[in-house]
Amino acid sequence: MAEDPDSARLLARLAAIVGERNVLTDPAEQARYLEEWRGLYHGLTPAVIRPATADEVAAVLKVASETRTPVVPQSGNTGLVGGQVPDESGHELVVSLDRLDRIRAIDVEGGTMTVEAGTVLQRVQEAAEEAGLFFPLSLGSQGSCRIGGNISSNAGGTGVLSYGNTRSLVLGLEVALPSGELWNGLRALHKDNSGYDLKQLFIGAEGTLGIVTAAVLKLFAKPRGRSVAFVGLSAPRQALGLFQLARERTGSLLTGFELIGRTGLEFAVRHLPGARDPLAEAHSWYVLLEISSGRSEADAQELMEAVLSAAFQDGLLADATIASSGEQQAAFWELRHGLSEVQKHEGASVKHDVSVAVHLIPEFIERALAAVTATVPGCRPVPFGHMGDGNIHFNISQPVGAAPGGFMARAGALNDAVHGIIADLGGSIAAEHGIGRSKRELLRRVRAPLELDLMRRVKAAIDPLGIMNPGRVI
Amino acid sequence: MAEDPDSARLLARLAAIVGERNVLTDPAEQARYLEEWRGLYHGLTPAVIRPATADEVAAVLKVASETRTPVVPQSGNTGLVGGQVPDESGHELVVSLDRLDRIRAIDVEGGTMTVEAGTVLQRVQEAAEEAGLFFPLSLGSQGSCRIGGNISSNAGGTGVLSYGNTRSLVLGLEVALPSGELWNGLRALHKDNSGYDLKQLFIGAEGTLGIVTAAVLKLFAKPRGRSVAFVGLSAPRQALGLFQLARERTGSLLTGFELIGRTGLEFAVRHLPGARDPLAEAHSWYVLLEISSGRSEADAQELMEAVLSAAFQDGLLADATIASSGEQQAAFWELRHGLSEVQKHEGASVKHDVSVAVHLIPEFIERALAAVTATVPGCRPVPFGHMGDGNIHFNISQPVGAAPGGFMARAGALNDAVHGIIADLGGSIAAEHGIGRSKRELLRRVRAPLELDLMRRVKAAIDPLGIMNPGRVI
Repeated sequence: MAEDPDSARLLARLAAIVGERNVLTDPAEQARYLEEWRGLYHGLTPAVIRPATADEVAAVLKVASETRTPVVPQSGNTGLVGGQVPDESGHELVVSLDRLDRIRAIDVEGGTMTVEAGTVLQRVQEAAEEAGLFFPLSLGSQGSCRIGGNISSNAGGTGVLSYGNTRSLVLGLEVALPSGELWNGLRALHKDNSGYDLKQLFIGAEGTLGIVTAAVLKLFAKPRGRSVAFVGLSAPRQALGLFQLARERTGSLLTGFELIGRTGLEFAVRHLPGARDPLAEAHSWYVLLEISSGRSEADAQELMEAVLSAAFQDGLLADATIASSGEQQAAFWELRHGLSEVQKHEGASVKHDVSVAVHLIPEFIERALAAVTATVPGCRPVPFGHMGDGNIHFNISQPVGAAPGGFMARAGALNDAVHGIIADLGGSIAAEHGIGRSKRELLRRVRAPLELDLMRRVKAAIDPLGIMNPGRVI
Repeated sequence: MAEDPDSARLLARLAAIVGERNVLTDPAEQARYLEEWRGLYHGLTPAVIRPATADEVAAVLKVASETRTPVVPQSGNTGLVGGQVPDESGHELVVSLDRLDRIRAIDVEGGTMTVEAGTVLQRVQEAAEEAGLFFPLSLGSQGSCRIGGNISSNAGGTGVLSYGNTRSLVLGLEVALPSGELWNGLRALHKDNSGYDLKQLFIGAEGTLGIVTAAVLKLFAKPRGRSVAFVGLSAPRQALGLFQLARERTGSLLTGFELIGRTGLEFAVRHLPGARDPLAEAHSWYVLLEISSGRSEADAQELMEAVLSAAFQDGLLADATIASSGEQQAAFWELRHGLSEVQKHEGASVKHDVSVAVHLIPEFIERALAAVTATVPGCRPVPFGHMGDGNIHFNISQPVGAAPGGFMARAGALNDAVHGIIADLGGSIAAEHGIGRSKRELLRRVRAPLELDLMRRVKAAIDPLGIMNPGRVI
């Protein structure tokens, strides 16, 4: 690309902003920015630009705007829908936020943290903890995903049940707009109705309206005690009853309710180093249940015992074990967090990130299991996820011994089967991973023309030149 | 107006949609829609239109759009910033939602309610309760405000501490757009990242982008027990310490933390029928503290006693009493809810609805008290409000015996004094009541040109003809 004089001029202008060594043109240096971690998307770029400050991000966008250069913002490169990887055209500039990783301030009294977009989620969690507070966003990829990407994708994760999606954890934003202007909306207010709530535009917009450069996050009082149980049961309908019982008895103290199918557990036990089945006998379904207490560990345990004993009496579970140490709690959670990754050891897989109203989960799972096994006999469905949020990752691994290519050729049919049921139940085909590139066509099929039109109008209003992450979302 | 042939034609078209008797042109019938309850805003309108269905609302907007007729949506007409009353031009059509008041569905298993915009908030609360669930939005005006207005103003109220603003209580929306199209976004999903979250545009937009016709609301498990205490203390700084202690010990079980100054309590005791001071001696400041438990009344009481006793030992309170019955709990809350209304018995008043980061509340109050008493010697500040949300209603009653007109002539100077401190502390001049007509000029002074420009771009994208509540907000 650098041989093209326009391109050379562009890169020189960008180098003047971020410094020569932060304009990566060497294929070896670019590699980790151009490949998505599962290997599903590969792209090309004239350069990966690594600004170190919000002002540099804004200046880069100003140049992009003046030269009509499309920009792909990239945070931790852990996204699952191809939104953060450039396309194959070689025209899209990658703007990486990985150097923009300062924690600007922690306000212990006010319970807020001001943090730059490139900060790794786990560092945010740890910094909150060091300050005696708690940041509840928690994902499988927390060791490498970065908070800007979490915000731009309105990440969900395992804390949503009690604390909400990322959207509800953000008090203020700083955003570099496509025009090159930097919007400072870093307010730390719990209530502010002074005009339109502009930050809502950028949360979950997947980098199509601007680049989030920093945020004010809400921190919470750290629960003083937790109890984590692993429950075996026979069907999702039992799990729904258990959820309702637990929710009624514990309210917002119910901080985790994850459903896991037997196949997923088997995969995890087989492929995660040191993993073992927490229960003596096999069950068709499992629930990982977490209760947190603001009082004490003993209080959380007591509540957990009361919930499990009431559930047992009501016939809502077959067996259960409560983690007896922090290590065991972590081990239970690792089984759950590892579920997405272990599938790769079992051959090709087709994944769905869907949601329905919580009480429709059993019906959805029953119908989807029937539909996918009819579509590809012998396939191994691995449904799991945040049942308490109505969000299931309805993943499907290939039949044992089948050719991966042959299975993947049926991906479209499997998608149609699952998404058809979702449409029928009024659900979402993109519950927490977003649209990116992989679901853009699907979005056009499932959302009403009026909704797509409204989205396009918002896009045109904020990014009139269409340089921000084009071809993603809308 | 009806003598103008254009106007007559317009009203005939509207009558064809909603029926002759729902196009109010008689001044006596119009009166209650044209006057704001405090008498601060009076307007004129060619007609008050009362559609009964969402389709009728959309059809009315289509006609308004075709004829470029400005529209003022009106819900319960309890707004405090003049957003819901037409101006004096006589050109603005009032579209009242008061006939659109059906509860379309309550889903007990899923914990949601689908309700039309004109439903009175208290009816929403009661319907939730009858279904064994709980809708936490609670305001002084709940007997007359309507849920569409609550959503359009992103209402706050006393439940925000634990449950969030109205924004976080809404899962889905149905909105009549200025074009006359009806957007059905009535999803009941806790997680949905399939494209831009369009409902966020309309929540808090004060009717400037469209008319909310229905919503899917989140319902919660009803707390099994509550404890309400009335605490006397010497200064807001003590109250902040008490808040932090209570928050740390009770987390999300802390469902109310309201600060009240002595003058406000005196006004309430003097003017609210049957009201009495809950404490034996006078204190400079009070806190109404509410703790809710998912377990039992006794559990809530026990937690409250533990909090109060620790606070007493730490020197964070002077005296406290815990309500001994449901009636007494209600009486404590009535003192708080009545504070805004009782001021009218004490002559003219100037009001501010401001927020800062929670830990800055003591500094704000100290500085604002000094500033306003320096501006109008003898004035009686009545600060009170949702301290736990950082939101204070910094109201000021006129000096005893002064001429109301003379005091109101100083309103601008008082506003400047209070808002100057808010700007200095990074706060908001419109924490929960919105902008409407009364704060539009102020908004232009306090928000950055870039923010105002973004708001105008959003407005132009969704309401290109500018017919929706023009002259409000932006």
